[in-house]
This record gives sequence, C-alpha cells and structure tokens, in this order.
Amino acid sequence: MRMVDIIDAKRNGHELTDDQLQFFVDGVVDGSIPDYQVSALLMAIYFQGMTSEEQTSLTMKMMHSGTHLDLSAIPGTKVDKHSTGGVGDKVSLPLAAMVAATGIPVPMISGRGLGHTGGTLDKLEAIPGFKVEISEADFIKQVADEKLAIVGATGEVAPADKKIYGLRDVTDTVDSIPLIASSIMSKKIASGTDALVIDVKTGAGAFMKTLDQSRELAHALVEIGKQAGLQCMAVISDMNQPLGNKVGNSLEIEESIDVLKGRGPADLTELVLTLGSYMVVMGGKAKTPEEGRRLLEQTIADGTALDRFRAMVAAQGGDVRVVDDYTVMPQAKYRIPYRAKRAGILSRLSADEVGTASMLLGGGRQQADDQLDYSVGIELHHKLGDRVEASEPLLTIYSNQEEVPAVEQLLDESIDISDHYDQPELIHEVIE
Amino acid sequence: MRMVDIIDAKRNGHELTDDQLQFFVDGVVDGSIPDYQVSALLMAIYFQGMTSEEQTSLTMKMMHSGTHLDLSAIPGTKVDKHSTGGVGDKVSLPLAAMVAATGIPVPMISGRGLGHTGGTLDKLEAIPGFKVEISEADFIKQVADEKLAIVGATGEVAPADKKIYGLRDVTDTVDSIPLIASSIMSKKIASGTDALVIDVKTGAGAFMKTLDQSRELAHALVEIGKQAGLQCMAVISDMNQPLGNKVGNSLEIEESIDVLKGRGPADLTELVLTLGSYMVVMGGKAKTPEEGRRLLEQTIADGTALDRFRAMVAAQGGDVRVVDDYTVMPQAKYRIPYRAKRAGILSRLSADEVGTASMLLGGGRQQADDQLDYSVGIELHHKLGDRVEASEPLLTIYSNQEEVPAVEQLLDESIDISDHYDQPELIHEVIE
Repeated sequence: MRMVDIIDAKRNGHELTDDQLQFFVDGVVDGSIPDYQVSALLMAIYFQGMTSEEQTSLTMKMMHSGTHLDLSAIPGTKVDKHSTGGVGDKVSLPLAAMVAATGIPVPMISGRGLGHTGGTLDKLEAIPGFKVEISEADFIKQVADEKLAIVGATGEVAPADKKIYGLRDVTDTVDSIPLIASSIMSKKIASGTDALVIDVKTGAGAFMKTLDQSRELAHALVEIGKQAGLQCMAVISDMNQPLGNKVGNSLEIEESIDVLKGRGPADLTELVLTLGSYMVVMGGKAKTPEEGRRLLEQTIADGTALDRFRAMVAAQGGDVRVVDDYTVMPQAKYRIPYRAKRAGILSRLSADEVGTASMLLGGGRQQADDQLDYSVGIELHHKLGDRVEASEPLLTIYSNQEEVPAVEQLLDESIDISDHYDQPELIHEVIE
Repeated sequence: MRMVDIIDAKRNGHELTDDQLQFFVDGVVDGSIPDYQVSALLMAIYFQGMTSEEQTSLTMKMMHSGTHLDLSAIPGTKVDKHSTGGVGDKVSLPLAAMVAATGIPVPMISGRGLGHTGGTLDKLEAIPGFKVEISEADFIKQVADEKLAIVGATGEVAPADKKIYGLRDVTDTVDSIPLIASSIMSKKIASGTDALVIDVKTGAGAFMKTLDQSRELAHALVEIGKQAGLQCMAVISDMNQPLGNKVGNSLEIEESIDVLKGRGPADLTELVLTLGSYMVVMGGKAKTPEEGRRLLEQTIADGTALDRFRAMVAAQGGDVRVVDDYTVMPQAKYRIPYRAKRAGILSRLSADEVGTASMLLGGGRQQADDQLDYSVGIELHHKLGDRVEASEPLLTIYSNQEEVPAVEQLLDESIDISDHYDQPELIHEVIE
C-alpha cells in the first residue's frame, strides 16, 4: 500500500477502506508516513469529507493507537458528557454530581483550558488540595464507591490524534467536521464510558459559529458514537454569551456549587438539567427525559447532589469546606466594576472576548505551559436582552492588579447596547 | 506573514497576493516553510485553482528563484517550442532546423525523458559525439552564428519549481492545471526566449487525457506567457497513438532527418509545419501562418533545413555523417516483427504502452539515473484507421535481445483491431 494512492483516493472523492485508514494511522504513529503526505490527505479530507463509516473507522483506529480504559469493573451503565468548549461552561461540575446522585456512575475524563475557553480540571484545581491526576485503579474504585470522579487522562490517549491535531493546526485543516469528530470521539471512546451526552456549542463564542455547522458536527459525533456501540446523543446549546454569570476558576466553582444548592443562574441550571435528563435516561434510571429531569431536581432539593460533590472533593484530596465557604479558594484582591456606556438593551456580550478578558487577567492560558491565577475572572450582572441603565455596573472584573486597561478595552469591544434585541434560544436542538 | 494564513486564504478560495506568493516561493527555496505546509497549500490549490494573475505571479517568482538566460546578444526575435510530452515526439529536431533555415534564431533548452515519454536530449545523444551540455557563452554564440542550438539547461533553473515538483509527485497534486502551467512556464521563461509555441498533447498517451483538460492547460500556458511579455500560442495535437512511425532514440533521429529530406511520415511532417508556421510568424519572417508554412516547405525543398541540422550537429561535436548514413548511430541486433492477430481496422495503438515497450527494451528510463540503449525501439508499419490483414507485421521491435516476451505482451494489450474506426484529428485546436 502506498500513501500517495490513499491521498489520490480521497482527493478524487472515494471512501477510504478500513485497510487504508489503518495504514494511515499506523504510519502516523510510527512516523513512516512523512508529514507532507499526512497534511496533503488532511486537506483532501477537508475538501472531500468522509462518510460516517469512514469517520467511525478512523475514530476507532486512532482510539486503538493508544491506551483505553476498561471500566467493566464498575457496575451499572457508565455515563459521561463532553462539551465542544465554551466560556463560563462549568456544566460538568454540577452535572456529574446530580447524575451521580441518581445512582448512575459518572466517570469523567476532562481536559485543561487553552485560549478563551476554560478547562474543567483547571477549575477543580482552584479547590485547595484537589488532585486531578490519579491512578486508573483509584479512578475506577472512586467511581464504583462514590459514583463520580473527574480526572485527567492517564497513559497516552490516541497518540495518532495528537500528532494529526498538531499538523491540522499549522496546515489550516482544523475546521473539518470529519477530523473534528474523529478527534473528539477517539478520546471519548478511549475513556471507556457506555453512554455519552455531547454539548455542541454554537455561536460567536463557539468553535462552530453557525447552527448548520454545529448541527453537522453534532450528527457526526452521535453517528460515530452509535457505530462504536455507545449510547450517544447531542444537544446544541447557545454560546453567543458566556454560560451562567461567572467566568474564572474559583468563580466557576462557586457558581457550580450554587447550582447544587438550587440557587444557580437560570441558563446554567437549565442546560445542566437538559443534558442531565438524557444522561439519566441512558443510565437507566428514568424512562423519559421529563422523568429524568424531575429526578435531578430532586437531587438538588434533597441535598444528595451536593453530597456527591462533597464526596468527590474529599475522595480527590480537596478541601471539603469549599462547599460552605468559597473563600477557602484563592480570592482576587480587587473588584473593579465595568459600567454601561449608555442605557438600552444589552445586545452583544461576546463570549470569546469575555473569555479572552479572563485569560488576560491570568485565569486562562495563552500558551500550554502558562501558570493560572485561580482567583481572577469576570462576573456578569446582566445577560443578553436585559434592560440596563447608563453607568450601571454591567460586570465586575476580579483582578489582582488595581488597573486593567487592556481588559477594559477588550470588554469595550465585546459589548453592545442597542434599542432592540431578540433573546436567543439556550437549547437550539436535541439530536438523538 | 504566516504560511498558515496563506493556506487559509487559498483554502477559502481567495486570490493570493504577490507578497503571499513571494513569501511562499522564498520559504520553499530557503527551507523556512516546512514541507507539510507546502503540501497543504498545493492540495488547496488543486481544489480551489488560481486566477491567471496568480499563475503568472507564481511563475515569475519561481523563475526568479534560479538562474535565467539573457539572450539579448543574439539579434532578432528568438523563438522556442515546448511540448507537454508524448511518444515518438521528435518534433523539436526537424522543427528547429526548418525555422532556423528561415533566418529566425531558435535557442532550444530541452530535457531528458522519463517513463514512457522520450527526451530530445537523449535522442540527440544517439548521434556519436553530440554534446548537449555546453556553456552559456557557447550556446549564445552558436545560436547567433548558426541560428539554432538544442541543449540542456545550465545553472539552477527554477529551484522553487524543482522542490515543489518533488512534493507534488508524492502528495498527489501533480494534475493541477495552475501547478502544471506555472512549472512549465517558469522554466521556459528562464530560457530567455522572446516567443514560444506550445504543443499541448491530448489523448490516451498524453498527460492530459481529455480535450477539455488540454484546452484548459493550453489557455493557462498561453495566458501566463503573454502576461510575462512573451509572444505565445499553443496547438493541441493528438497523442492517442505515437507521433510518426518510429519510437526510440536512434530511430527518432533517422525519422527527424527523413522529415528534413522531405520523406518524413505525414502526421509528423504536418505537425512540424503547423507549429513552425506560427513560429515563423512570431519570428517576423511571415505575415500569416500560410506564408510561414510555404517558407518552411521551401527550406525542405532547397536543402537549407537539412543544412541547418548538419551545422548544429557539427557545432555541438556530433558526427555529421549521420545525415547521410544512419548506421553511424547504435543499431539494434534484432528486428522482431509483431504481427496482427486478425484482419480489420487498427482501432487502438496506445501511445503510452508503445512508449513503455520502448522503455522496457532499454530506450527509456524507469529511474532518473538509468542508462539508455540508443539502438532499440519500435517501428510502426501501420497507424490508426489503417486496414490490416491477419498475420501482417504491424510493427517491428528493434532489440538487443533475441526474445522479448514482456514487450510483446505489453503490445498485445496496447493494440486493438476492429471493424470500424474514426480517424482522430491530428491538430485539435489552435489557441492564440
């Protein structure tokens, strides 16, 4: 088999065979296929696409290129959630606790943030002592005992994907649905879950800017998941503005615990309940999403969700006092109000620019090895469609520097106040 | 400027700017752009194409990446010819002599053969003593004195093209019209000619299999030539069967001299006269192609064309006796007849398979460093559309081995005899 023939087949719009995809993935991992041929194929895939069978085959081969977890020792249907990434997206934290409280095991393998989107692991590390790197055996034991754990990947997950992803970034082949979908799913399938809910973000602050793109990606992800033998569904949710009211690591832990206490912001709570209701159905604890939703609301009302969160923090070495006292987490020195320039309706509150503002404050990474300041961030006092008065504080900047002109300038560019605004839907679509 | 942004622009269908193309060509030559980004751009160009302005800009930048000849010391309008490559295509040899005989300087930079197509330089080297590698100064002097020279390139012509071509071969981006056109024209413009006639071959034995592809390439080549300030036109000629009756190095020299003696095969003579008639017009010696054709016919009738050929052979160190005695060139030991399997009309005589047969006999190169046997080749006794009888010799195999079963098998697969056949046009189109 020759790589140039594989490139030719794809370039001419043919479906690649299992053997061709295996040759490709093997050659990427062992380095026998030069990068210039890999990138030529990636660009051909960008233009010609892949059938869902090809995407599944590529996904499975990338998955098998590395370590994958065997969670069969944990009784019950294991359910996980993945998000394509957004600003203020702390959904995983309350969601895992609420679903676990219904008795479903939630083994979550999460990632770190880069650029304007935050990472679940970074947020958890705002809790003093919290360990996200634990052994596979401890992870399995914790999920079996406590029904939930949120950890980083151990071992080398999908090294083929890692190498391909590196090339995509420098060859302008990042935004190809088959490549995005196989990259995401190769890592999620390696995590050993039985069922997966995917939160595909859409809008100005999301990787997928349009509903059409988001829908295409959601269908690709669900199709791969099902073909790989998982229960799988996706929700397309809005990411034109940040999710919830708080952006930043300590701040997002606060807001997550607020949700578990029944006093979280409406949009965040609604998205957690929506995603969770399907997870409860897939986990076999409810017949319908409506029934699942009621079960989850019950876990808030009776405190069992908060109890699961506390159990996870304890099991992973974190300071459990955080549940009742947010000040055990790093606190910013200054709270700087950012005021409305005029009266009107808040018509733009750009998620990616708010995320970038939080990153500039020290809450996110520009480079992969940047150190984080857990205490900083942004708190929103208004969301899109709210009526605001001139000079009213729109948001508060949590900072360790007294003056933040660059952040304020970025916020100036990310906010519009107009006379009219049509509120976007939070949940655009559900794809089963 | 970042290469990934240049890839992005082309991937999204935008026209690359002069600065972007300069950055690309510079980075290819100095190695600062990694091959994986070059190949990603090549694949994006394959899918998105290039405007004629982009093609000209890329051509000129690749041309300027290496040495280029200054022929201004030679008086008169210098005229050259290029062919996209075919089997039995010895057109350059009689054509250069005939055009030179009208008083027009013909400075021809030619190449060597690879695969099933032969190279003009290889054919000339079948003449004992003939040197194709001469200095730039000697080349210019010879063209000024004798009106013609056929030589290999000196110096490093279009190194950017050389590197890009190497990558195209292994990344399946060879058959992209903008890349083919800029590759050809960067080298031809570097040769310093004032005018250029391009013979674009079309059909089963040509690089461009369909008339549409050939037309597209011809227009691209002519457009680049004109934008670069050359007089430029193209002829699309048929390459479903070999051109003329002889394929092989010594054999093609024989047939070329036969044309100059007025006894060449009809198709070869016709194509030489057609291409030459436009060269004579561009060289300023005739007002119309018809007038140019009459002048060229005159150079055969009065022996001046043969005289120019003899002068070139002498100037380049070759044995001039070749003109009257073909046996001064290497001669094959065996002449093996290949006979018709049935009676009927010769309906397929595949040019590339006949070329490959000649290569297998030793007359062509499978690898760039293969040694050639000048004596071997194939002589056709019939052409497409001829009525043939069963067992009649269709062609003669010139070989230094007594038995050539592999060649015979290849010929079996390259020849069809049917009941009907419509003769193809030799000259499909003229593009000015």
